[in-house]
Amino acid sequence: MKNKKIWIIVTMCVLMMITSLFTGCDTQKSKAANTNTYSGKKPKYVFLFIGDGMAMPQITAAENYLGKLKNTNTPENSKLTFTQFPSQGMATTYDAGSFITDSASAGTAIASGNKTLTGVINMDKDKTKKFTSIAEMAKKEGMKIGIVSSVSLDHATPASFYAHQPTRSNYYDIELELGKSDFNYFAGGGFLASTGKNKDKSDAFEEAKKNGYRVINSKSEFTKLNSKSDKVIAVSPVLDNEKALPYAINKNTEGISLAEFTQKGIEVLDNDKGFFMMIEGGKVDWAGHANDAATSIKEVISYDESIQKAKDFYNKHKDETLIIVTGDHETGGLGIGFAGTDYSTFFDKLSKQSISYDEFTKKVEDYRKNGHTPENAKIEDLLPIIKQYYGLEAMDAATYNDLYKKATDSKSPDKDAASKIGMALSPKDMDDLKTALSQSMLESSERSKDEQAKLLYGGYDPLTMTLTHIMAHKAGVGFTSYAHTGVPVPVFAIGKGQEIFNGYYDNTDIFKKMTSILDLKTE
Amino acid sequence: MKNKKIWIIVTMCVLMMITSLFTGCDTQKSKAANTNTYSGKKPKYVFLFIGDGMAMPQITAAENYLGKLKNTNTPENSKLTFTQFPSQGMATTYDAGSFITDSASAGTAIASGNKTLTGVINMDKDKTKKFTSIAEMAKKEGMKIGIVSSVSLDHATPASFYAHQPTRSNYYDIELELGKSDFNYFAGGGFLASTGKNKDKSDAFEEAKKNGYRVINSKSEFTKLNSKSDKVIAVSPVLDNEKALPYAINKNTEGISLAEFTQKGIEVLDNDKGFFMMIEGGKVDWAGHANDAATSIKEVISYDESIQKAKDFYNKHKDETLIIVTGDHETGGLGIGFAGTDYSTFFDKLSKQSISYDEFTKKVEDYRKNGHTPENAKIEDLLPIIKQYYGLEAMDAATYNDLYKKATDSKSPDKDAASKIGMALSPKDMDDLKTALSQSMLESSERSKDEQAKLLYGGYDPLTMTLTHIMAHKAGVGFTSYAHTGVPVPVFAIGKGQEIFNGYYDNTDIFKKMTSILDLKTE
Repeated sequence: MKNKKIWIIVTMCVLMMITSLFTGCDTQKSKAANTNTYSGKKPKYVFLFIGDGMAMPQITAAENYLGKLKNTNTPENSKLTFTQFPSQGMATTYDAGSFITDSASAGTAIASGNKTLTGVINMDKDKTKKFTSIAEMAKKEGMKIGIVSSVSLDHATPASFYAHQPTRSNYYDIELELGKSDFNYFAGGGFLASTGKNKDKSDAFEEAKKNGYRVINSKSEFTKLNSKSDKVIAVSPVLDNEKALPYAINKNTEGISLAEFTQKGIEVLDNDKGFFMMIEGGKVDWAGHANDAATSIKEVISYDESIQKAKDFYNKHKDETLIIVTGDHETGGLGIGFAGTDYSTFFDKLSKQSISYDEFTKKVEDYRKNGHTPENAKIEDLLPIIKQYYGLEAMDAATYNDLYKKATDSKSPDKDAASKIGMALSPKDMDDLKTALSQSMLESSERSKDEQAKLLYGGYDPLTMTLTHIMAHKAGVGFTSYAHTGVPVPVFAIGKGQEIFNGYYDNTDIFKKMTSILDLKTE
Repeated sequence: MKNKKIWIIVTMCVLMMITSLFTGCDTQKSKAANTNTYSGKKPKYVFLFIGDGMAMPQITAAENYLGKLKNTNTPENSKLTFTQFPSQGMATTYDAGSFITDSASAGTAIASGNKTLTGVINMDKDKTKKFTSIAEMAKKEGMKIGIVSSVSLDHATPASFYAHQPTRSNYYDIELELGKSDFNYFAGGGFLASTGKNKDKSDAFEEAKKNGYRVINSKSEFTKLNSKSDKVIAVSPVLDNEKALPYAINKNTEGISLAEFTQKGIEVLDNDKGFFMMIEGGKVDWAGHANDAATSIKEVISYDESIQKAKDFYNKHKDETLIIVTGDHETGGLGIGFAGTDYSTFFDKLSKQSISYDEFTKKVEDYRKNGHTPENAKIEDLLPIIKQYYGLEAMDAATYNDLYKKATDSKSPDKDAASKIGMALSPKDMDDLKTALSQSMLESSERSKDEQAKLLYGGYDPLTMTLTHIMAHKAGVGFTSYAHTGVPVPVFAIGKGQEIFNGYYDNTDIFKKMTSILDLKTE
C-alpha cells in the first residue's frame, strides 16, 4: 500500500514535470508574445521613464551622433543604456479623438490605462469620471511613490500620475492635487502657476506644506535628503522661464540634474514595501517642437544618464527591480535623412552647436531691443554669434556656388570642396536668414501669420528657426512638423516582468502590464 | 531500502520540477528576450516578407488611412494582418559604410547575416568574398525555395537571396545567377537587362531555360501551375517600364497580383521537405522615394493581401509554419504630422488620388510633347486632370485667403470654411504649380539642377512632385527626403519560433534567428 501511494506520487510528480515543461514553459512563451498578464514574482522597485516626444527617430539620432563622434558610421558601440535592455516593444499612441495624441491623453493612457481626449488629465472623454492612476494604486498597497520631471511638476506627464483635471492647463488645480497626493517624493522643475492664473490664490507650495510636505529649493538641502525624508517637493534652484531644468546642451552646472534627482529618489524612496518612481525627460519634446536636432540629441543623451542611475540600482537588485523606458509620442516628425543630403548624414556637425534654440532666441531679442528694426537690422551684425553658437560661417556667393558644384559633381564629387562648404552658409541660407531677421525684428504680435510663415517658423523666433533648420539639414536630418506626430513609440524593459513588454500593443497596455506585474487591482 | 530509493526519486523529481519551474521557464523567458537561439520544433514552411522602404511610418499611415475611411480617428479596427502578429521587434539597418542603408546591403544583412557596403549584393566590403544566403542553405537541406517580388526579379532585395555581385547594377550577371540557382519558384516582375547593358548578350531567360527553367508570361499558363511544377520563372504579363508590377493605386486587373503570385507559390512549393519563400513588396519604397503618400498607403494595403495568403496557410498549418514580415529600411522620412496641420490629420483626402506619380508624369510628358514649352504652357490646361486624378480644385486667391483666415481663426475656427478649402489649391499652391510646370516643360536634362530644385523635386517631374507634396500636406503628413532614412524597421512574426523575433536587434540578427530556427549551419 505504502509503495503504491509512493508510486502514485512519483507518477503525478513526473506528469507535473512534463506538464510544466510543455504547458508551463509554453505558457511563458505565449505570454512573451503580446500579453498583459504576468504571474511571476512581483518586483519591489519599479522605475517608469517617459521620454516626452522621444520615439525611434530621436533615439536613433542620439546613437548615430555618438557613433559619429567616435569617427564611425555605426551606432554599434554607442548604444544608449536603455536600448540595450533585453525587452522591447512598440506602442500605438492615438487618443480618443485624434491619430496624434498630446502628453495629457498619452499620460492618461500610460498612467491609468484609458483613452481620453487631447488635453484631458486622467478623466474620461466627458470630463466627468476620474480615473485612478497606477501611482495611486501602488500608494494604496503601501509602496512609496516618486514623481520626477525635468519640466514643471504640474506639466501633463507628471500630472497624469496624481491629478484629475478636464484640462491640462488647470495648473493651479493640478498643483493643489499634488499637495494632497500624499506621494513621497516630487522632484525636478517647479510650478507654472503657484498662485493661480490671476496670481490671486494661496501659494500652492504653502498649501502643500499644510499637508505635511517639505519644499526644498537649494542644492545643500537637497544633498541632505535621505531614506528618512518623506513628503518632499524638491525643486531645482536653477530653472528656465517655463519652470523646467535647463537644456543639457547649455551645460548648466549650478542646478540639480535629472540624474541627481533620480539618484536621490532612490535613496528617499527605498523601503521595505518598495517604490514606484516615474521619471519624465520632458524637454526632448520641446526640442522636437522647435526642430532643434542638436538640443534634442543632447537631451536624449542626458536623459539616458538618469536611466543609468536606475540601471545601476537594478544591477544590485536584479531580482526585485523593473525598469521601463518609453515615450509618450514622437515630436517634430524627425526623419534620419534629408532631401538635400540623400543617403549621407553628418551628425558630427551638430557638435558645433552649443546653445539651445530658446537661449539663442534671447540673444536675437536682445539685438532687437537694442534699437534694431526690420529696416536697420543687418545679418552681418549677428554672424559672429551665429558662428560662435552654431559653427556656421558666411561665404561669398560665387565661392559657395563654385564649391557646391564641385562637391556635388555626379561623376567625381570633390571631397575637399564638400569639406570647405561643410559649415558654410549658402546664398540661399543667407537670403533665408535675412528674411527671417526682418521678421524677428518685429514684435511677435506684428509678425506675419500667413501659411508660409507658419511652415517656416512654427510660431518660434524666425531667425532661430531658420538656424535650427539649416543645422538639421547640414547634419542630414529633417522635420515635418512643429507638433507631435502619430508614429508608435518604443517601450524598453529590463527586470522582473520585462518579457511582457515585448510585442506590438497600445499605450493603454503599458498600464495593464504594469498593474499585472505589480498585482494591483484595477476597477 | 526500497522506500529510501523511492524517496530519493521523489525528492529528485521534486527538485527537477522546481528547477524546471524556475530555471527552465526562466531560460525560456530570457530567450524570449533578445536571443538568436531557438531550440523548439523546426517549422516546415517559412515565409519571409520584406516590404522595401516599409517601416513604422508607412504602416501607421496605412492603418490611419483605413481607420479614417471608417470615419474614425483610430486604427483600432483597421489593423493590417501582420501588425496583429503576436511577436514584434525592431531592427537597426545601418550598413558597413553608412547610417543609411540601401536595399543591397540591407538585403545582404537579412539574407546572409553580414554587414556590407551600400550597393553590394551578398559579398564582403572588399567585394572578394561571397556570402551564402539563407535560401541557398535551405535549398541544400532539401527545402524548396521561392523568390517573389513586385519589382523586377533581378532587383537588389530578391537578388540578395540568390546572387553575389560587387554591385547591384550588374543586372545581367544577377539574372544569370538566378538561372543557375536551382531555386524552384521565381515570380513577379521581369528582368531589367535580359540581354545585358549593351543588349549584346544571350537572353538571360533563354540561359535559364537551358538550366531547366520554364518561363511563364501569361495568366492562363500561370493558372495551371501546381505542385508538380518546378523550376518556374513566372513573370506578370502586365509590367511597368521598370519591369515591375503596376502600383495597386492604378487598379490594373489584367496582370497577376503579388497576392496571386504568393498563393501560387504555396501551391508550387508545398512538399514533404517544406519551403522557404521570400516575398518582396518592392514599390512601397518607390512611392516613398517619390513622396507619394496615397500610392505608398495603397501599396502597403495591397502587400498586406499577400501576407494574408500566408496567414491563411498558417491557419491550416499552425504547428509547421513561420511567417516573418519586415522592411529593409524606411524611405522618404515620412512623418505622421505636418507643420501646416499641427495635431490634425486628414488621411481621407488621400482617397481622392487615383493615380500614381509615375502615371501622372506620363500625362505631363504627353502635354509637353504636344508642343508645350515653358512659355506657352498654362496650368489651366492641366487643372481638369489635376482635379480628376488628385481631387484638387482651383479657387480664386481672394476667396481662398478669406476662407483660410476663417478656417484658422484661433478663437473660433470655422469648420465650414475649412471644409470648403479642403481640396482647394491655395494661391501659393498655384504659384508652386506654375513654377513647376515651366520646369516640367523642359527636357529633363535642361531642368534646373540647383540645390533648391533638388529639394523641391528630387529629380522627379517637377509638376508631379509639387502635386504629391500638396496631397501629403493636405492629408497632414510630410516627407524629409527622397532617399532612404536611418530609422530602425519593425519585424513582425507568427508561428514556430515567433518569440525570438521580439526585442531590439540588428538586421543581421534576422538571418541568425532564421538559421537557428531552421537549424541551418552557417559558416
